[in-house]
Amino acid sequence: MPHRFFMNDPDDFVTEAAEGLALTNPDLVVQRTPLFIKRREVPAGKVALVSGGGTGHEPLHAGFVGDGMLDAAVPGAVFASPTAIQVAEATKSADAGAGVLHIIKNYTGDVLNFNIAAELAADENVEVESVLVDDDVATDIEGSRVGRRGTGSTLIVEKICGAAARRGDSLSQVADLGRRVVAHSRSIALALDACTHPITGKKSFELDPDEVEFGVGIHGERGRGRIPFASADELVEKLLDSLVPAVGADSGDDVIAFVNGLGATQLTEQYVVTGGVHNSLQKRGINVARTLTGSYVTALDMSGVSITLTRVDQEFLELWDAPVTTSGLRW
Amino acid sequence: MPHRFFMNDPDDFVTEAAEGLALTNPDLVVQRTPLFIKRREVPAGKVALVSGGGTGHEPLHAGFVGDGMLDAAVPGAVFASPTAIQVAEATKSADAGAGVLHIIKNYTGDVLNFNIAAELAADENVEVESVLVDDDVATDIEGSRVGRRGTGSTLIVEKICGAAARRGDSLSQVADLGRRVVAHSRSIALALDACTHPITGKKSFELDPDEVEFGVGIHGERGRGRIPFASADELVEKLLDSLVPAVGADSGDDVIAFVNGLGATQLTEQYVVTGGVHNSLQKRGINVARTLTGSYVTALDMSGVSITLTRVDQEFLELWDAPVTTSGLRW
Repeated sequence: MPHRFFMNDPDDFVTEAAEGLALTNPDLVVQRTPLFIKRREVPAGKVALVSGGGTGHEPLHAGFVGDGMLDAAVPGAVFASPTAIQVAEATKSADAGAGVLHIIKNYTGDVLNFNIAAELAADENVEVESVLVDDDVATDIEGSRVGRRGTGSTLIVEKICGAAARRGDSLSQVADLGRRVVAHSRSIALALDACTHPITGKKSFELDPDEVEFGVGIHGERGRGRIPFASADELVEKLLDSLVPAVGADSGDDVIAFVNGLGATQLTEQYVVTGGVHNSLQKRGINVARTLTGSYVTALDMSGVSITLTRVDQEFLELWDAPVTTSGLRW
Repeated sequence: MPHRFFMNDPDDFVTEAAEGLALTNPDLVVQRTPLFIKRREVPAGKVALVSGGGTGHEPLHAGFVGDGMLDAAVPGAVFASPTAIQVAEATKSADAGAGVLHIIKNYTGDVLNFNIAAELAADENVEVESVLVDDDVATDIEGSRVGRRGTGSTLIVEKICGAAARRGDSLSQVADLGRRVVAHSRSIALALDACTHPITGKKSFELDPDEVEFGVGIHGERGRGRIPFASADELVEKLLDSLVPAVGADSGDDVIAFVNGLGATQLTEQYVVTGGVHNSLQKRGINVARTLTGSYVTALDMSGVSITLTRVDQEFLELWDAPVTTSGLRW
């Protein structure tokens, strides 16, 4: 049976989810029309961070609104970009006098709408810079006009830029830092089962029991190809064989390793994958400086994992370790 | 296609998952034989808290080991109790001179093995008390010999007792407090789809698209019965109609509301349910003092939610709000 959803009127799904989130976290406020989620107070003079994108990737982005990470998040419909008006209103509302950084996953609709929003905000004297996250190795195709998709690294960018904004960096400094994090980060994913669209009830693809979808995206897009189902360690090895050269990690380098569940994959499974990632990176001479494991950048109920590696220096690590207080990420 | 698992040798699944968890959290150590997960340091003179049970409910219990909650967790095989030897070794290892509290979910195997473990530990002069969690309203059947199952309230007991132990309460004080939390807590769950056993690959039951399993447990047990699939708000109403009288919540009472995803149910859906719970409790005159939403007490890949209510006084709330630093719960 395809995944069935806890839902009332499908038209209210995204708004009701935002309001439910705010009920769990009194530091958040939901503006309904146009819809966005914001911190109750953005500290005056702090660069504000705004991100967003289609619903279906929770806790990304609204779960990362809070002290040390995002100041506002703008959810679109399921797997659809928010509108430019939504993003513009969130941007103006989040601005605390030091400008706003847009963190944008590289999808045509998101890029278009965030760019229009930046112009609308500029018309009202809000300074906006943007960081485009394009980390998905599976879409690194020579001659591609659209470039790589933005996936798991978005969390790393939001965390590190959030810490920089919190310590008082200027808009251009936070933006430069974000672009450096993007340049040092890559991700790749595989799925053991597709996701189910909550409105249509349709699975995005069908797999045979002896195959897995390799290089899958976070919107149920088909992957780069299919490979045989195998042990966790063998699947991890295949993922890292693509990922490690793509991120440019050499023996002796330090990385943040982020093992991410895509939705229906359980924590136990994610931890088994984490062990495989550590073992394989150790064999490659790469030092895992920090590890994050959990379902943070999901694709509805997809069964699968993504792995993100970020090559880090001391500054990246200090910003990564800095306190964060959000519903989805806290330390 | 049934859920497929990221796994190596099935015999190593639970141990590899424990080791993966410890890789993400340097404050944890894994002892392999017999298997348990422990804090690197239990503060001297603090009452130690030990819990455990079958694998498949993560982050419960191992994800709740850390400052302000558990000191050790003992995972069994999937949906199977840990052995008495595992629990006894964890108990002796966690003891920091002030005795050990066992927090036990009410299942025959768990009760048996924790009780034997308590005797084994007592033989080595470790004082042990226990709190039995039996909160599942669906199993509240007159004349039942086994009593109610232990489910979502376990998290509440572990959090509140963890905070009490941290502030220096004695073993008997922490145990009494835990029993009071149990007495003030009830849970109920429903499933939109069954879970898949990772070893057999079998679903625990089959549902038609127009029905849901009401009063389901966290081991794929069948529920109390089947009711028609309906909107989130209507399903919430049915759950609360059972839960509110069972927990004895009256108009004017304060509660902690814990909306828990059982595995494959997404955060957005859980937040929609959270909104429904708030609205319905408000209509009933019950004040939701705190809300927790997330997949904390899971049943493998089950699609469904449980709702736990705990009637609270000021002391419960202060202990609930106290700092906690674990992989699974942090504030």
